[in-house]
Amino acid sequence: MKCRKCGGRAVLELRRHNTAFCGPDFVDFFRHHVLETVRRWRMFTRDEAILVAVSGGKDSLALWDVLHEAGYATTGLYIDLGIFEYSHASKARCEAFAGERGLPLRVVSVSDEVGAPIPAVRDATRRPTCSACGLSKRYIMNRAALEGGFSVVATGHNLDDEAATLFGSTLRWDESALARQTPVLAATHAKLARRVKPLFRMSERETAAYAFIRGIDYIVEECPFARGATSITHKEVLNRLEDVSPGSKAMFLQGFLDKARGLFQEREAVRLLECVRCGQTTTGEVCAFCKLRDQVKRAVRPGAGAAATELPDAPDPAAARGLISDLFAASEIHAP
Amino acid sequence: MKCRKCGGRAVLELRRHNTAFCGPDFVDFFRHHVLETVRRWRMFTRDEAILVAVSGGKDSLALWDVLHEAGYATTGLYIDLGIFEYSHASKARCEAFAGERGLPLRVVSVSDEVGAPIPAVRDATRRPTCSACGLSKRYIMNRAALEGGFSVVATGHNLDDEAATLFGSTLRWDESALARQTPVLAATHAKLARRVKPLFRMSERETAAYAFIRGIDYIVEECPFARGATSITHKEVLNRLEDVSPGSKAMFLQGFLDKARGLFQEREAVRLLECVRCGQTTTGEVCAFCKLRDQVKRAVRPGAGAAATELPDAPDPAAARGLISDLFAASEIHAP
Repeated sequence: MKCRKCGGRAVLELRRHNTAFCGPDFVDFFRHHVLETVRRWRMFTRDEAILVAVSGGKDSLALWDVLHEAGYATTGLYIDLGIFEYSHASKARCEAFAGERGLPLRVVSVSDEVGAPIPAVRDATRRPTCSACGLSKRYIMNRAALEGGFSVVATGHNLDDEAATLFGSTLRWDESALARQTPVLAATHAKLARRVKPLFRMSERETAAYAFIRGIDYIVEECPFARGATSITHKEVLNRLEDVSPGSKAMFLQGFLDKARGLFQEREAVRLLECVRCGQTTTGEVCAFCKLRDQVKRAVRPGAGAAATELPDAPDPAAARGLISDLFAASEIHAP
Repeated sequence: MKCRKCGGRAVLELRRHNTAFCGPDFVDFFRHHVLETVRRWRMFTRDEAILVAVSGGKDSLALWDVLHEAGYATTGLYIDLGIFEYSHASKARCEAFAGERGLPLRVVSVSDEVGAPIPAVRDATRRPTCSACGLSKRYIMNRAALEGGFSVVATGHNLDDEAATLFGSTLRWDESALARQTPVLAATHAKLARRVKPLFRMSERETAAYAFIRGIDYIVEECPFARGATSITHKEVLNRLEDVSPGSKAMFLQGFLDKARGLFQEREAVRLLECVRCGQTTTGEVCAFCKLRDQVKRAVRPGAGAAATELPDAPDPAAARGLISDLFAASEIHAP
């Protein structure tokens, strides 16, 4: 198979685009698409300082690479979840990436902010782990952006993540989640940073290929708490549809954005207040993050914490695929 | 496993209802649900004469059985598609069912109405076979209802059919199809009969069990032209989701009807006219059925027809599952 652009040997076939590329031309293709997405969706301008949320995985590091190479002013934000070796390894990847390029990286620890690392938070609350973790990350991302003077946070959600989230919301016809499914969550309050997803049109396979070709050292394992997540079934199902009919995922997501999202958005008029405790936005009096922190404080005895909490049984890498992104993808911001 | 009602030996487990039944109690359960659906959705009253569209398959014959046993005034309508042995066998099942119960059965032939049987129609038009066939059936059903003085046509669409149709429309975000997805299509014009789907809450497995327990002799094979239909992939995918989480199909369909359908319906305001050729409803000047008939007339030379048309390669029963229902399920009525 030949590269569509230079006629050389192709290394990657893209069935949904009915084309194939050699390594360097694929890198150009990928960058062009991402930057075109940024432009068309007015995600940010060259004058803005961009906080890129990085997990150490292929998607967020590929995103940071594209934006940095294109000359945008970027700072990385790594949120340390305190999930044992998984967190150590992913943090090391982010630090290496930033160090090699001389880029600034901020590190915020869930343990400092919430009062315990995620494994202990998991035991302290009835929320599903991914839900408590997602809530913490969105809160921390937003506060880090505001405190650091960043008007926009960019995350590495790819097409597969976004299609799977939309798929789950559609199966439940969850009107609130559907109203918030968008590649650009506008800053609808002075204390909210804009959240954007410049990779939402690139498939998981494409971001993996980009990271590989660019020689980015990323963490392949997914979070050990991801096992059995419903979103994994949804990704499998979407992969089956994509196999039968290439382009299905993109059609599903883009069709929603073009034709249906507006219908749900019109209905969803949320009035945002400021949390009486922390001052961040909420729809109630005390925000969900402060409530979570209270729960953790009550449950975590002094001296206890990660050490007291056991990991779930040996991770199944196949079943765990796709989690990190789902954490970010959880739809709620600061529900009461 | 024990029957929930009588404690006797259960023959059927219903995971999504977390229950099990013996044969007679399942029959009661099934009838109760169908009649409750008719009542709650105001599908028809005991004063109305109901035209039941029957294909010879399990769903439509189970429906006719339930309505007849409940004392409704029913007449069957069999549409002879002229699809070789498949049509002969399905017609014989309908005639036997009606004969044994002394019920009236009307037979209308596509060949008489369109000018050629479906295999020849298939060759005469660029429309996909299922689309031309579905158009013909909806037209014939409606005209048969009006001419026979029936205000309502009942079809045997089950939960699996409806969920798969909704799934396909949602993947494309086909706004017109979504607006029309309902178990009761109201008669919005004097020349339209109401169309209702009393089995839309019963799964394919449940209607098959009902027909089996009731000793109904139905045709198991599906239409030979169904092979490779996208709807089959959609049914597979929904079965996978149902396996992982029983009740998914019902939640998907019911959630749509409760929360989303209204949004799409509000947008869809179609003005219905009468076809200048046949007088049936259309959104243009000449209805789609008359146009199809013209195409067939031009293409089918005298003496040609079914005999000149070859069947597709040997049918694959697994791949062909679910077609008959999809024919009925196609969303358009008389698009121009």
